[in-house]
Amino acid sequence: MKGSEGLLSTARSAGVEVCFANPGTTEMPLVEAFDTIPGIRTVLGLSEGVVTGAADGYARMTGVPAMTLLHLGPGLANGIANLHNARRARTPLLNVVGEHASWHQHADPPLASDIESLARPVSGWVGRTSSPASASADFVEAWRAARTGQLPATLIAASDHMWAQGGVTAEIPAAEPVPAVDAQQVSAVAKALSADKRPALLMGGSALTAEGLRTAARIAHDHGGEVFAEGSPARLERGPDIPGVRSLPYFPEARQKTLDDFSDLVLVGTSRPVSFFGYPGMPSMPIPSTMRVHTLATPEQDPLDGLQQLAEISGSAATKLPATEPKQVRPPEGALGASAVAAAIVLSQPESAIVVNEGVSSSAAYPKLASAAPAHTELTLTGGAIGIGIPMATGAALACPDRPVIDFQADGSALYTLQGLWTQARENLDVTTVVCANRRYRILESELARSGVEQPGAAATGMTSLDGPAPDWTALAAGFGVSAVRATTGQELLDALRQAHSEPGPHLVEAVLTE
Amino acid sequence: MKGSEGLLSTARSAGVEVCFANPGTTEMPLVEAFDTIPGIRTVLGLSEGVVTGAADGYARMTGVPAMTLLHLGPGLANGIANLHNARRARTPLLNVVGEHASWHQHADPPLASDIESLARPVSGWVGRTSSPASASADFVEAWRAARTGQLPATLIAASDHMWAQGGVTAEIPAAEPVPAVDAQQVSAVAKALSADKRPALLMGGSALTAEGLRTAARIAHDHGGEVFAEGSPARLERGPDIPGVRSLPYFPEARQKTLDDFSDLVLVGTSRPVSFFGYPGMPSMPIPSTMRVHTLATPEQDPLDGLQQLAEISGSAATKLPATEPKQVRPPEGALGASAVAAAIVLSQPESAIVVNEGVSSSAAYPKLASAAPAHTELTLTGGAIGIGIPMATGAALACPDRPVIDFQADGSALYTLQGLWTQARENLDVTTVVCANRRYRILESELARSGVEQPGAAATGMTSLDGPAPDWTALAAGFGVSAVRATTGQELLDALRQAHSEPGPHLVEAVLTE
Repeated sequence: MKGSEGLLSTARSAGVEVCFANPGTTEMPLVEAFDTIPGIRTVLGLSEGVVTGAADGYARMTGVPAMTLLHLGPGLANGIANLHNARRARTPLLNVVGEHASWHQHADPPLASDIESLARPVSGWVGRTSSPASASADFVEAWRAARTGQLPATLIAASDHMWAQGGVTAEIPAAEPVPAVDAQQVSAVAKALSADKRPALLMGGSALTAEGLRTAARIAHDHGGEVFAEGSPARLERGPDIPGVRSLPYFPEARQKTLDDFSDLVLVGTSRPVSFFGYPGMPSMPIPSTMRVHTLATPEQDPLDGLQQLAEISGSAATKLPATEPKQVRPPEGALGASAVAAAIVLSQPESAIVVNEGVSSSAAYPKLASAAPAHTELTLTGGAIGIGIPMATGAALACPDRPVIDFQADGSALYTLQGLWTQARENLDVTTVVCANRRYRILESELARSGVEQPGAAATGMTSLDGPAPDWTALAAGFGVSAVRATTGQELLDALRQAHSEPGPHLVEAVLTE
Repeated sequence: MKGSEGLLSTARSAGVEVCFANPGTTEMPLVEAFDTIPGIRTVLGLSEGVVTGAADGYARMTGVPAMTLLHLGPGLANGIANLHNARRARTPLLNVVGEHASWHQHADPPLASDIESLARPVSGWVGRTSSPASASADFVEAWRAARTGQLPATLIAASDHMWAQGGVTAEIPAAEPVPAVDAQQVSAVAKALSADKRPALLMGGSALTAEGLRTAARIAHDHGGEVFAEGSPARLERGPDIPGVRSLPYFPEARQKTLDDFSDLVLVGTSRPVSFFGYPGMPSMPIPSTMRVHTLATPEQDPLDGLQQLAEISGSAATKLPATEPKQVRPPEGALGASAVAAAIVLSQPESAIVVNEGVSSSAAYPKLASAAPAHTELTLTGGAIGIGIPMATGAALACPDRPVIDFQADGSALYTLQGLWTQARENLDVTTVVCANRRYRILESELARSGVEQPGAAATGMTSLDGPAPDWTALAAGFGVSAVRATTGQELLDALRQAHSEPGPHLVEAVLTE
């Protein structure tokens, strides 16, 4: 068989069921092979930001590496921003990037560029095929690297290695277990918390599953502490039967103030919190000066194991948590602001939804109300590279066809990768996109205000506003085949969301924010 | 003044009049400074592919470096594909990429990444500010590098160097002259052509100006040769008073066949032609085996100087060229194919238009008909990274507000950066976008057919077609505030184009191709 066929049959044996793709000429041998080696569904994105963002959403929901197919350096480059988010989310991904025929590269054809240099900043592993047969072994190495390192891996596949005969099917070795937490590490934390402490447990990775949140809540309850989610978690479970979790605030002074109430910070599957940006006079890692920091599990270790061990040592394994009063959310009325949108989403949310949260400034109210919603999974913008919401919702919907997906979406971010709406239409995915149309980069207005610019000048206003003209989201969605309506009041938004959830296929609701 | 103010006042003294931007938090000190140091118009793009593609179009038309402002590694990454095209076009560009505060970088905040690694593949120069005062000197160095090397230069500006006091205005040194062509180089070419030869003059860079084309035509006429444009020229002048130029065909066998008629290949401001892709059994640099190759001017040298010298030595300086019969183009009728679209564009083309050609397979017929159009400038896709048409048209219109801009646009490529339509609306630019809606990546279908796949399977068809649903370009354009109509026949298209040209501001015509 051809090198391309060997690579795809290896991918199939690894369990790859979907490949997110935007191929070009150098990838044609692989494109052909998807028909001769069937079993992998190909999903086209109209630009590579859609491809990589969808792969991230897919892998976050399935837990196994997602595969992409990209066209040379420029194709990879278009997907880098969302690969950056995937790297920060610790998402396993496997990018196959086509490359010129090995003997053609010396000629420096127009589309040639240094693919490794582009790939390295967003990849835990970068490699290159050296023959049709090697391609499969290279795929296995990339797969292992992605799975073990929980990072994107990038395999550069020369087109002659793909089109020539000599391909083989390689075996995928069994997954290596996630490193457990050392018992001494656990006792050190237990000992530190044994005195009269008030710990904050800061959770990331799989600590934010239902099991992790329950165990952490028991420990926190017994120590008079509280459970927090890291700044932008890759994935977080919420529901009536899952103890709630507070989010660490975005701005460093609010973050520090929040932590002032606690004596110790216990890191569970995450690192010491870092300020999103550096501000004059603020430290990079803003925590109270008297706070002691302990690591129960690093991001590379199994936080569930660490929590379980700690609960047993500290006698919290069987702690019965007090019942919590379900939050009451009132239907929003009148003009729309961020709180009204969050309330409308919560009140209309179907069972077992996946909520993609790229609301930026507009979705700040959501985590506070989300405990009133039925059980759901939240996926967030981990790396700050905006434009992941529509793609990630697309990938999550492909991973979980039985679960409704809601994309709580800032308009500025949505404009980066609105092309993903077309893939939602083409694949007939059950995604409801709520575009919070404040028609500005509001987060940047806040940043200007923080730096003392209360009345931005014409240039600054022009670069932070999205009007003149305001994008018409109902037209844009229709242009990509997605049914859309506009809502300007709380009641209209609630009605539109309920209607969208009651119908199959993708929908978009433009929520025009005036507050 | 602040570091940001020093940098911008240096930019202003360099002659920067426009900055194409999509800033974020790390760039806020610069955003503020555009108001305190006025004189530079800021143009917002909704994604960075728009920003860098517009800068390329602007610089191709003005000839001086264009400035961009980008947000950290991910913002730069989104703009890399069009920077790749700019690098291949030899376009001088100066990217200012914001970076975290210098003291915050060690903390590895979520948006941190290796910006240099991302920038190097598309930049002739990469540097980093080291203080508020250095920022201006660094800008000067970047500016010189961009102007002298005719390449993008990337300056990474730490936000604390921008917000702190200590900025200065630095002087921009006079431009260094473009290296002239050595007289010996010219005589060698003259000597080689003195015998009974039939040379093909292959032209790139400023050889494709009116002056270069006239001089080359005289030389070719006297030697029984012909003048060709390199595969994808950055900029090419055409008009009734400018001798026509053939384009070198895209596929290597056609290219070789074309050159079979000639004995010698004279390179004028370009390099030896390289096949766009490597194909089994075809050489990387397909020229006839007996053809001799001479370099009159490298891409770094002044090709006008080389042509002038050669014309004088070979006695062609005063050659009178025979009058050429203007081509007759018949109005297109009935269903639309590539030739009909080209004919409609030519027949409706206003005086002194700038024609951006990203038609890919759909615009192949245009160069053959273009001699019938009024004088115009053509800008093409130099690096093969699709998605430059809409942005480049935007930048060209900003550079030349008195010239109408026509974007001859493939639909697959347009979908990459359709966000640029919004900038056209916001800046009220005189751009007419003609989207050739064949609803497929037709070039990929051709490539599949070349590799022997006449009947692509379901997977290959899914990855090369753009239907199910077909994007509705009239809705997409309206969503961004651009007036749009759909044309399905030659007459409709001609009418729509004439209407668009008669009105100010941006227009889009969706030409639905059925042939």
